[in-house]
Amino acid sequence: MFISELLPVKEAFRLLDENQRLTSEETIDLIDAHGRVNSRRLISKLDSPPFDKAAMDGYAIKAKDTFQARADNPITLKVIDSIGAGKVSNVKLKEGEAVKIATGAPIPEGADAVVMEEYTYKIGDKIEVLQPTSPGENIAPRGEDVKAGETILEPGTVMRPQELAITASAGYDTIEVYKKPRVKIIITGDELVEPGTKPRPGNIINSNKYTLKALVESAKASPTVEHSPDNPRVLEEKIEENIQGYDMIITTGGTAISKGDIVVDTVDKLGRVIFHGVAMRPGKPLAFGLVEDKPVFMLSGYPVAAMVQFDIFVRYYLLRMQNINYEHQLVERICQRKTPSKLGRTDYIRAFTDNKIVEPILISGSGIIKSMVKSNSYIVIEENSEGIDKNSKCNVLLFNSFKI
Amino acid sequence: MFISELLPVKEAFRLLDENQRLTSEETIDLIDAHGRVNSRRLISKLDSPPFDKAAMDGYAIKAKDTFQARADNPITLKVIDSIGAGKVSNVKLKEGEAVKIATGAPIPEGADAVVMEEYTYKIGDKIEVLQPTSPGENIAPRGEDVKAGETILEPGTVMRPQELAITASAGYDTIEVYKKPRVKIIITGDELVEPGTKPRPGNIINSNKYTLKALVESAKASPTVEHSPDNPRVLEEKIEENIQGYDMIITTGGTAISKGDIVVDTVDKLGRVIFHGVAMRPGKPLAFGLVEDKPVFMLSGYPVAAMVQFDIFVRYYLLRMQNINYEHQLVERICQRKTPSKLGRTDYIRAFTDNKIVEPILISGSGIIKSMVKSNSYIVIEENSEGIDKNSKCNVLLFNSFKI
Repeated sequence: MFISELLPVKEAFRLLDENQRLTSEETIDLIDAHGRVNSRRLISKLDSPPFDKAAMDGYAIKAKDTFQARADNPITLKVIDSIGAGKVSNVKLKEGEAVKIATGAPIPEGADAVVMEEYTYKIGDKIEVLQPTSPGENIAPRGEDVKAGETILEPGTVMRPQELAITASAGYDTIEVYKKPRVKIIITGDELVEPGTKPRPGNIINSNKYTLKALVESAKASPTVEHSPDNPRVLEEKIEENIQGYDMIITTGGTAISKGDIVVDTVDKLGRVIFHGVAMRPGKPLAFGLVEDKPVFMLSGYPVAAMVQFDIFVRYYLLRMQNINYEHQLVERICQRKTPSKLGRTDYIRAFTDNKIVEPILISGSGIIKSMVKSNSYIVIEENSEGIDKNSKCNVLLFNSFKI
Repeated sequence: MFISELLPVKEAFRLLDENQRLTSEETIDLIDAHGRVNSRRLISKLDSPPFDKAAMDGYAIKAKDTFQARADNPITLKVIDSIGAGKVSNVKLKEGEAVKIATGAPIPEGADAVVMEEYTYKIGDKIEVLQPTSPGENIAPRGEDVKAGETILEPGTVMRPQELAITASAGYDTIEVYKKPRVKIIITGDELVEPGTKPRPGNIINSNKYTLKALVESAKASPTVEHSPDNPRVLEEKIEENIQGYDMIITTGGTAISKGDIVVDTVDKLGRVIFHGVAMRPGKPLAFGLVEDKPVFMLSGYPVAAMVQFDIFVRYYLLRMQNINYEHQLVERICQRKTPSKLGRTDYIRAFTDNKIVEPILISGSGIIKSMVKSNSYIVIEENSEGIDKNSKCNVLLFNSFKI
């Protein structure tokens, strides 16, 4: 009945993109940078490795000395020095000579290959080489991994273990990253009480406090949670108090599309509501606005609706505040049940999927947390579809794809 | 040449399982439990919702009063009370009466349905109902989500936002979880220096320090990193110093399968080496042992080999220390290149994949960090395969699947 007034999901994304804000940058120690988002184009200061180095324990040699070497025709070389890891040798290797060398040590002048220890036989200060070695064999050449001046990372790169390693190898022990968005979560609802207390008649346990804090953490942001009664004056004060110190405000509750939407009305008063009501299920009463140029997401009070709204829109926005080019990654699965949908509305159906099939979780109700506990994905039915036939292909959004 | 002495990957997993240790439990605040692992069977203390509650803003009514209601034949009811969220009403609803009710508020006695506000028309202290309502409509019945006494979580459950929500709704504000394994990382190598310093000849930047710390964090464990020279006496001291205060020791370097494996020799002296050398590439020189009944993983000094060893074995073990039933989840992709492999060895080939195809990253060398930076997965070629033909199916292990 109100469907004609609701914003299509695609249009909601367009409005979010149009009003996307970025956090500022900060410099942190590289050792603390796991999972953070690099904010600069990073250029290597160094060659890595910084010299031609031995890739194996063995002997640095001239390869051509060994071209004729066979197990039944060993070639004898004189060992003139030994180089441990972290050490250097000043010798200049000549024909018929070898230098014992540890993995990682620099190749001495005059040598062009390393023969593995296993292919040699030691006799006093000499070795017998039992097989031929090619030039360059078992040598990691200078700059093989990274060359000085080479771009190693682009802005917006999430620092995985390997990005940390290449950044260290390029000579950096600090890094510029986007600040984690500071998010104030305001949970509204006179009926809400803490789980430790015994609920009185009419009370409901405030589970959204836990959910929203964890969801914000999952989006690489820093949450602070507060509870507000359903009182427009108190809510207004809380928003005004916090809008300067935070990069985003998220509210839950009080957004139902009817009279008395106290949260939406308050945001409209303090700033600008950009949209209210999206053609999706669950999660229809989602609203988004700006107060003092800071984004405010107004989520449903229903736990499941709030989670879906977060999973579809808020995490997307929060990750993009850190310049991560996040998009939902849909995968294809075979749906095990006929699943109807309504034209003009995007459905996000809680579901359990393996690598091939997907099963909708048949527990309805936008408040039923248990359905989310049993799910690992959403079946996504676009607005131009009337549903999915049994055993036909459908699009699935894996919860695991939210982990960036 | 040593391949016959190497342990098959499956056998390495069997030996890890045989020597799996669990961390002990601790009680933490539920608000801090995101991502932690529940250690007990959790039984709900409460019904959730704790009463029949309104699922919409509207009027609590007797459904049968409205069976004949139509837009052109409205039924008039008398509004005798109003219930806000968090409030209760003591009225007992009789035929022809209605109680105004907010979403989340308890249904008053005598009512069996809620008619949405949108389907009513208010005239003074009366409403006209414009369409019929069924019994139970817009009511979330007591215990619909969780019933008191019901099992809500099993041990070994990772606490996602939804598990936090259901735990709160079940009346808990604390939870028993497995302790995060405390992991001491000892990076060996005389040649290693910090990235802030200017490397002298023979020096290599210690990138493994960054990688291993981040990898341990990715396995829900708490890392502490230390550097050790290649000196058996110092290493022995460091292991002995730390074995009591940590749940696991990880070393990198000094494990090449040749003479002078100082790390493996030291662990063998202090405890027991359970295996050394696995039929895999990269990562062959992996060793695993126990010292004072604590697991010790001895990884390669090569950055890429160490990452692969961690990704395949160490994360598996660390997650299982917290009772997570982790297994590698392989997915199927079409390989874009002919990729040979050797019988008797499991290959983990750095690769980039989308939803359909996979492309091996053609940068070889177990030290080439750049190849890991360009990768998002491993192609896994089992030991009984001689490789993959171009455009044929292969098994892929997504890095994203490591995020638990």
